[in-house]
Amino acid sequence: MDLQGYVQALYVGDANGLEKTACQTLDFTLEGISGDKHAGFTKKADPRNPEYQRGSMMRNDRQWSAVAPDELAEAAQLMGIERIEAGWVGANLAFTGIPNFTSLPKGTKLVFPSGAVLVVEAENMPCTGPGPVIAAHYPDLNLSPNSFPKAAIHKRGLVGVIERAGIVHVGDVVTVQVYEVAKANS
Amino acid sequence: MDLQGYVQALYVGDANGLEKTACQTLDFTLEGISGDKHAGFTKKADPRNPEYQRGSMMRNDRQWSAVAPDELAEAAQLMGIERIEAGWVGANLAFTGIPNFTSLPKGTKLVFPSGAVLVVEAENMPCTGPGPVIAAHYPDLNLSPNSFPKAAIHKRGLVGVIERAGIVHVGDVVTVQVYEVAKANS
Repeated sequence: MDLQGYVQALYVGDANGLEKTACQTLDFTLEGISGDKHAGFTKKADPRNPEYQRGSMMRNDRQWSAVAPDELAEAAQLMGIERIEAGWVGANLAFTGIPNFTSLPKGTKLVFPSGAVLVVEAENMPCTGPGPVIAAHYPDLNLSPNSFPKAAIHKRGLVGVIERAGIVHVGDVVTVQVYEVAKANS
Repeated sequence: MDLQGYVQALYVGDANGLEKTACQTLDFTLEGISGDKHAGFTKKADPRNPEYQRGSMMRNDRQWSAVAPDELAEAAQLMGIERIEAGWVGANLAFTGIPNFTSLPKGTKLVFPSGAVLVVEAENMPCTGPGPVIAAHYPDLNLSPNSFPKAAIHKRGLVGVIERAGIVHVGDVVTVQVYEVAKANS
């Protein structure tokens, strides 16, 4: 089953902080997004990898992260704030037109006009990291650091790897090839 | 759900041919199996990637391949031959004690005592490659090159990537963490 959506926004970031900078194109290489701090074939185990010693090397299964603004809007509503921007939560891509984006299964492929192909590895589990970033955008509210992970569960988008290199532009059509176990094993 | 099995045999090969050489240990790095022709973070698209131009670069999702001798025995029976050895079909690992090995879902992890962790990417779809190798072991039979892919469908094992580096030994216990969609999204 194929779906179609659109690239609404792109972000890149090499700073230590979580927040990223909006841009018009992203250069996806097989190693990662050029200039992004999550680029690499390998990474250090972090708090999302509790089974491994923190800082020890492992395969990088999150070369990119992506969100759907409609899902972030639902999380914002639950938090009682006007909006959560994709760049605030460290996403590289924001997609529109893909229903229930975060529920796309592992193995789903995102195919772009340039030939770039991204593969979904996992749901991006909400952590407390974005809480302070979001709170800084609403200094008058006394937002709890835990309000984001609670509101954003199953709305925080996906992470994955890069199967084919290529450039992605704001406004690109994305074709979503939803992974189907039955098809994969047929 | 975790299962347990055993490493019955290990194979490595850097030759152009498909057949591999039995060995007592394999050194899994994050880039691949040391000395094996399938090692690498990237690979050239091959006939198993019909959607991409042959020879163009892509992510390597088959750093290793593994089979279960009980499944190969079923394929051999269908072909009317005594046996198919794991090394003949280019496998790196042969496991015993894991029922329906080839049907383990994508995302399943194979964990070894050294700390090495392999992740299943896909079922290894039978191609005609092993046909001549198997036929060479039964020179008196007139085996068709297509008899192997037909007999081995869903019995040809799995391919995948390496999440954590480590040494694997013949006789090692392997813990199989079966990927569960519900758990991954909980």
